[in-house]
Amino acid sequence: MLRQLLSAAMLTASVISINLQANEIPESKGNAKWVDPFIGTGGDGHLFPGAVVPFGMVQLSPDTDNPMRGESPQPEIYKRCAGYHYDDHTIMGFSHTHFSGTGHSDLGDLLITPITGEVKRDPGTLMDPDSGYRSRFSHDREWASPGFYAVDLLDYNVRAELTATARVGVHRYHFNGQDKGHVLLDLTSAIYNFKHKVLWSDIRQIDAHTLVAYRSTNGWAENRPMYFAIQFSKPIDQIEFINEDDKRYRCMDCLGNKKHSTIENTAVKRAAGKALKVVTSFTGLEDSPLLVKVGLSAVSRKNALLNLETEVPHWDFDKVREQAQLEWNNYLNKVDVEGTRVQRRQFYTALYHALQAPNIYQDVNGQYLGLDGEIHDGKGFEHYTLFSLWDTYRALHPLLTYIAPERVSSMIQSMLVHYQQSYEKMLPIWSFHGHETWTMIGYHAVSVISDAYLKGFRDFDVALAKEAILSTSNNPIYDAIPEYKQFGYVPFDVIPESVSITLEYAYDDFAIARFFEALGDSRLAKTYYARAMNYKNVFDKNSGFVRGKDSKGNWESDFNPLEAKYMGSFTEGNAKQYSFYVPHDVAGLIELMGGDDQFESRLDALFDTHLSDEMIKEHEDIAGLIGNYAHGNEPSHHIAYLYNYAGKPWRTQERIRQIMDTLSSDKPDGLAGNDDVGQMSAWYLFSAMGFYPVAPGDLSYAIGAPQVKKASVQLANGKQFTILAPSLSNQNKYIGAVKLNGKSLLRSYITHEDIMQGGVIEFSMTDRPNKQWGNAPKNRPISLSQGE
Amino acid sequence: MLRQLLSAAMLTASVISINLQANEIPESKGNAKWVDPFIGTGGDGHLFPGAVVPFGMVQLSPDTDNPMRGESPQPEIYKRCAGYHYDDHTIMGFSHTHFSGTGHSDLGDLLITPITGEVKRDPGTLMDPDSGYRSRFSHDREWASPGFYAVDLLDYNVRAELTATARVGVHRYHFNGQDKGHVLLDLTSAIYNFKHKVLWSDIRQIDAHTLVAYRSTNGWAENRPMYFAIQFSKPIDQIEFINEDDKRYRCMDCLGNKKHSTIENTAVKRAAGKALKVVTSFTGLEDSPLLVKVGLSAVSRKNALLNLETEVPHWDFDKVREQAQLEWNNYLNKVDVEGTRVQRRQFYTALYHALQAPNIYQDVNGQYLGLDGEIHDGKGFEHYTLFSLWDTYRALHPLLTYIAPERVSSMIQSMLVHYQQSYEKMLPIWSFHGHETWTMIGYHAVSVISDAYLKGFRDFDVALAKEAILSTSNNPIYDAIPEYKQFGYVPFDVIPESVSITLEYAYDDFAIARFFEALGDSRLAKTYYARAMNYKNVFDKNSGFVRGKDSKGNWESDFNPLEAKYMGSFTEGNAKQYSFYVPHDVAGLIELMGGDDQFESRLDALFDTHLSDEMIKEHEDIAGLIGNYAHGNEPSHHIAYLYNYAGKPWRTQERIRQIMDTLSSDKPDGLAGNDDVGQMSAWYLFSAMGFYPVAPGDLSYAIGAPQVKKASVQLANGKQFTILAPSLSNQNKYIGAVKLNGKSLLRSYITHEDIMQGGVIEFSMTDRPNKQWGNAPKNRPISLSQGE
Repeated sequence: MLRQLLSAAMLTASVISINLQANEIPESKGNAKWVDPFIGTGGDGHLFPGAVVPFGMVQLSPDTDNPMRGESPQPEIYKRCAGYHYDDHTIMGFSHTHFSGTGHSDLGDLLITPITGEVKRDPGTLMDPDSGYRSRFSHDREWASPGFYAVDLLDYNVRAELTATARVGVHRYHFNGQDKGHVLLDLTSAIYNFKHKVLWSDIRQIDAHTLVAYRSTNGWAENRPMYFAIQFSKPIDQIEFINEDDKRYRCMDCLGNKKHSTIENTAVKRAAGKALKVVTSFTGLEDSPLLVKVGLSAVSRKNALLNLETEVPHWDFDKVREQAQLEWNNYLNKVDVEGTRVQRRQFYTALYHALQAPNIYQDVNGQYLGLDGEIHDGKGFEHYTLFSLWDTYRALHPLLTYIAPERVSSMIQSMLVHYQQSYEKMLPIWSFHGHETWTMIGYHAVSVISDAYLKGFRDFDVALAKEAILSTSNNPIYDAIPEYKQFGYVPFDVIPESVSITLEYAYDDFAIARFFEALGDSRLAKTYYARAMNYKNVFDKNSGFVRGKDSKGNWESDFNPLEAKYMGSFTEGNAKQYSFYVPHDVAGLIELMGGDDQFESRLDALFDTHLSDEMIKEHEDIAGLIGNYAHGNEPSHHIAYLYNYAGKPWRTQERIRQIMDTLSSDKPDGLAGNDDVGQMSAWYLFSAMGFYPVAPGDLSYAIGAPQVKKASVQLANGKQFTILAPSLSNQNKYIGAVKLNGKSLLRSYITHEDIMQGGVIEFSMTDRPNKQWGNAPKNRPISLSQGE
Repeated sequence: MLRQLLSAAMLTASVISINLQANEIPESKGNAKWVDPFIGTGGDGHLFPGAVVPFGMVQLSPDTDNPMRGESPQPEIYKRCAGYHYDDHTIMGFSHTHFSGTGHSDLGDLLITPITGEVKRDPGTLMDPDSGYRSRFSHDREWASPGFYAVDLLDYNVRAELTATARVGVHRYHFNGQDKGHVLLDLTSAIYNFKHKVLWSDIRQIDAHTLVAYRSTNGWAENRPMYFAIQFSKPIDQIEFINEDDKRYRCMDCLGNKKHSTIENTAVKRAAGKALKVVTSFTGLEDSPLLVKVGLSAVSRKNALLNLETEVPHWDFDKVREQAQLEWNNYLNKVDVEGTRVQRRQFYTALYHALQAPNIYQDVNGQYLGLDGEIHDGKGFEHYTLFSLWDTYRALHPLLTYIAPERVSSMIQSMLVHYQQSYEKMLPIWSFHGHETWTMIGYHAVSVISDAYLKGFRDFDVALAKEAILSTSNNPIYDAIPEYKQFGYVPFDVIPESVSITLEYAYDDFAIARFFEALGDSRLAKTYYARAMNYKNVFDKNSGFVRGKDSKGNWESDFNPLEAKYMGSFTEGNAKQYSFYVPHDVAGLIELMGGDDQFESRLDALFDTHLSDEMIKEHEDIAGLIGNYAHGNEPSHHIAYLYNYAGKPWRTQERIRQIMDTLSSDKPDGLAGNDDVGQMSAWYLFSAMGFYPVAPGDLSYAIGAPQVKKASVQLANGKQFTILAPSLSNQNKYIGAVKLNGKSLLRSYITHEDIMQGGVIEFSMTDRPNKQWGNAPKNRPISLSQGE
């Protein structure tokens, strides 16, 4: 919901005197009205409140600070992964690209901000806003809804409004009766900024209203180009180009103030260098707002202009905003949720955050910048970027097969052309903007492809997918695949994070096996099913934990199951957590751990063991703890569902409620860690509806416990799948019984087929566990070693 | 001719012991055998001796040193504008792009050099070659001919041979019985290098034989990209990637020596950064040479590979060399010259240097990088770059209409697309590699277009040419065109070099008038004919010189006609020289100067006034002096021919011989200044044949005096134009009489028509002036104010 409503009372009480001429903030329609983009902008959510359309290339959002790497403490930098942090009280300006919920960062392309009065050229500091062009703001006078953001910049008495299309950001600045104003463009600003991050940039005025610009930055993605077409609704009255370069080379140097007889340093409205800023000045602002449209392209200035002119050929801000809201509602209205106001705020905001990425990364003429650095034509599919696969293969991509099915094949095709363009012949690992960052482990793209293929998505090059999967999972130069194949595990003396890698390879191999099985290639299916059992090779029966093993077969001697040190044998986790990472063969894992009761105790030990503060401090990037369960880290995401596999689904039901109650809220700091490009939100959405994809590619979902009274999903085949839990309450958190389309459902899982055939699944919720339901072995979710 | 022949005697006496297994240096055929690419590589010629084809994109040539800007004295840097200087005794390696004869520099892309034994990573210094990878060499063991260069790298006992196609450089390294060798690729090396010149670069091995690379430099052209495909004839045995970056960002930093579990820092054969070097190592070199092929592209890695595979799909070095020589002879054999051995060496070498540029700047698939930074398709014409127009409009472009007529329309079309892609809507001034440097003054592209159009070259977009000429010559933001149009001259209080600019605009306006006259647009022709008389507005009758005038009409008070200070009222010249810069209306100038005899005295005063050493020192970039006549600077190039206009052609005949005798030789330091991308060579060629285009666009040539006994030019229309001077000798430098196709020719000029109709012009040379020939007013070259 709009924050305007929340803070209506405070508005009148505001001590800041604003001559409010700007139009009123419009109310949202449809389910968009439940979305609060500020959820997750505080704490470690790393979400941004700005204006986007679903999967848009542009994320136009305020940046509250960008502490420089090498000059500022790492936590201060980490806090602003999304440019904005709810704790901050100043806004530097509005930039056009942002990651949604990542744990590392980049982007923040082309910061623009309106200014009145004295023009300061530097952003100044958070502590002393008057030292620069940044402005104070107040959450009381800040509004956001899907496709729209607005804020009053208090230092300038300017209201800034933002909206967007897929490839264009649109700004509207109300100068509130002031005749003169400026718009500053800072091409040096960037998220995770550092000295020399800008490799090169240029900007040029091409007519009275229009600028074109380029910059390449060297951040998480190296030498990442972005082109901009910037258009103002009023003619530029004055323009000043500022080049803060050392000017080592340019001839201007040698001349001092004397004008040389060339065009270069005189009349040309252009600058190029590594530290550019531009101040545009306007008059006649008192009566009507100034609009700025910014088209983006990774291909060329020409394409940036084309994107701009194609997507926003007019100056009707409200039309763009309404269209953006419409696009959001097309998705948000696909799910009809009944629940408390807070639940609906959380649910629709999670859905909103689940539809941020992968992002379109292609111009309206089809061209896009490929991983190989070449410009490709991209005919026949939409090209997407931003694959945070270690996170998103778990629940986000399975979710998109229901909510955004029309995009699934194009997303897969985008991964396949990535493979084609990859000199290493690898599917994406963690890629964005034509660059592979090689962040995190595994080869989880195979899970996304397998899950979608099994669900019937086949409008991509399947032969190429087969080739890409084989190449990736046997790649001799990636991580430790040769050793994995040789030893059946990754030895810790070869590479760090070896146990996590082994376990994740094994799951991925399961997904591959399923893919080949569906293709009818039983030989390859068999090979990968065998590889999928490799998890056993790192399970140390003596300690009862997965554990590092060296290439001679010796267990790692320096072993503490609670330890999660950087560059140890685990990634974002410890042995205690990773011991549960066998999503495709939980039955096999239960056997290794000594049976159902032992397994239950081990799960309880995970949730109930209090970690010492010292241990927490030592953990690298671990958040959202319940005991040793770390909801902020993806390796934990499936764990609460594992009680089902031991025939104790009521324990899962308890844990889901526990996580929901303690680790999520509808407040800015409501996320228990990074949203991780929608994965955390996707966990919430599945879990709130009552089921979760423990092992994508398996086509089944472990039933947890619905957290909303009703959720009805519109499916692409025209059918509707409705979850009902009318008796749900604070006390009634347990499943008494389940009916699927009127028939009693005894198993503690549902299948993709159950969902796609439509109908109603009705949960009778009670205040005490029904220990019979889902207890019988035949009613538990099925695991690989059970020979399904 | 090959230097091998010259130094045969010294070879045997060489004190350096070389185990010479490399094949013999082949003798050149056709007129290529007369070309000595070393002429002009010493002194201030700024020519390079490496391998090129006519107008090729690749100039593969040795770099003897690259003193760093900001660290080395400017003269040391200036000396190596072409990478190579004949004075130097070491070779750093062979890079793939070079300017031919420029007075400022850039390029030197991708330095490659063979190495044996210890691999040093830095080039080391000229004074201490052992401090780096550079090798000593000796001119005795160095050979060059059109399309071919070879040298023995004495420190490594390696003979390196180079040849080229338009877009591919081919190296052949003979390791002389050594089994192991290395090839170092230094992506940090550049001509006019300085710290941070490389904005970004990357290099990657894509198969056992092949690398692809990219780098962008920020030099004379800012952010200039170049892509490379590098292929070795033998598989790479070992490869080492060296990144000398500060590594501020890359994660490798934080890890120290510990291997992180990503592909990035382990097995991928790739590096990216600002300071890359690669060492490739090979074995099995003792029996056969190692070949390296390097394809270039300004568009993409893919195009670099395509250029490589298309132009040199094989490993036959000699075939490429022979093809290069064939292409040269196709041009060189168009002129049949008889004269002394020295004369033929000078003549064909000048012809060779006149055919270096403009360069092809387009890939085999038609794509090229435009001035607007966009990739263009370039269908229907060959796209050229490197327009040093202030120099080359004078004689080089008129020469190309005879020697390379098939390229003239494409060169003009290239200037027209430059205009189209120019945000300033300007024809090129001094442009290369998709960049306008805005170097020097005037808008001389119009002269090239007008001259060609009048000669019948019309296979370009004539309507666009009209638009481009009007836009350029009336451009409100270029230099001082508005003031020029307002005052009829450029006031010195508006812009420096104002007098030079006024005079050159006036000539250009004459060329434009001729163009519009030919188009039948008498209104525009009249306008520009009027503008062409603006030279009179800067002629101060009191002093008798052209002189700075301010916007109130006052002459510049601080006036010394001999002074040529930087940022004064003149460019590369002084008032004494520039007073003769009215090429299109010499008759009008003669009148201003007081008549024929006064004019002759003034010309003599120019040639005969000895400049004080102090004055010479003060002159900016002025070279090749006879008195105050500066042959090394283009504003003097037409001056010796002006005696004709005063009815005293025998004085011109004397001066031409004087210049030939004192300011040019067939030695490395044989040029009296920079060749300036062929302009100096074109002056030589016209003058040696006996005539010169004083005012291109005029279609007439002032007759000087032939310096060779015969020169016969094959014309595109199938006819032949032959200059004969059988009685020419050291004493017989004067024209006694002239016959054109058997009929007595009394006028001291010939026309384009005379040439194109073919036939024979025969000069009777004598040892004393014939003061009657060409003396009558009707027989003098015609000037604008004579109302032709």
